[in-house]
Amino acid sequence: MELDNVVELSLLYDFYGALLKEHKREIFEDYILNDFSLSEIAAEKGMTRQGVYDIIKRSSKELRLYEEKLSLVHKFQMTKEMVNQIQSLAKEIGGYNENVEKIQHISTKILDEL
Amino acid sequence: MELDNVVELSLLYDFYGALLKEHKREIFEDYILNDFSLSEIAAEKGMTRQGVYDIIKRSSKELRLYEEKLSLVHKFQMTKEMVNQIQSLAKEIGGYNENVEKIQHISTKILDEL
Repeated sequence: MELDNVVELSLLYDFYGALLKEHKREIFEDYILNDFSLSEIAAEKGMTRQGVYDIIKRSSKELRLYEEKLSLVHKFQMTKEMVNQIQSLAKEIGGYNENVEKIQHISTKILDEL
Repeated sequence: MELDNVVELSLLYDFYGALLKEHKREIFEDYILNDFSLSEIAAEKGMTRQGVYDIIKRSSKELRLYEEKLSLVHKFQMTKEMVNQIQSLAKEIGGYNENVEKIQHISTKILDEL
């Protein structure tokens, strides 16, 4: 799978993965997050390579549908970008100011948690 | 319905409502957001009062299940709280500083969009 897709799907999975059925989650994780091949997963699960492929396709479609309906990944990304701007602006401010220190601290905390 | 529940369900609906089936969405909106009574909705939809009640119960359960699995409302609320703190801290800083102005502006934008 192309790297762009892996990045996109990892992000979607991070948000909506918990909505996939257990069986789909295991296979999706093995393929997208743990980088096993279709054949390796097929052997491990006692399935055909095509069966594994279908599950990954269907899971990807399901995750994309959640984002299409909810746009929460997009919303989070926008917020993250703006908090990044705040952090940079706070860092640029010279001299010591307690509030500016706190703003830096809080923005770092938000970025760690998002 | 108690006000606490209405507030909670409105928030959940705001995040996950798009995942409910159209029919459920209409009834849920009429009851929770537009404050129609069960009887009014029943008359309008040609359903029994009990039927309307069941759909609202099931929709509420579905929305709560999404939050139980994804915790995205919680995540957003935490972020919102921290951005609120940043905004207050920036407001407290005396004197003119371009970066502080920008931080205030961006934090307001985040809060408007979250």
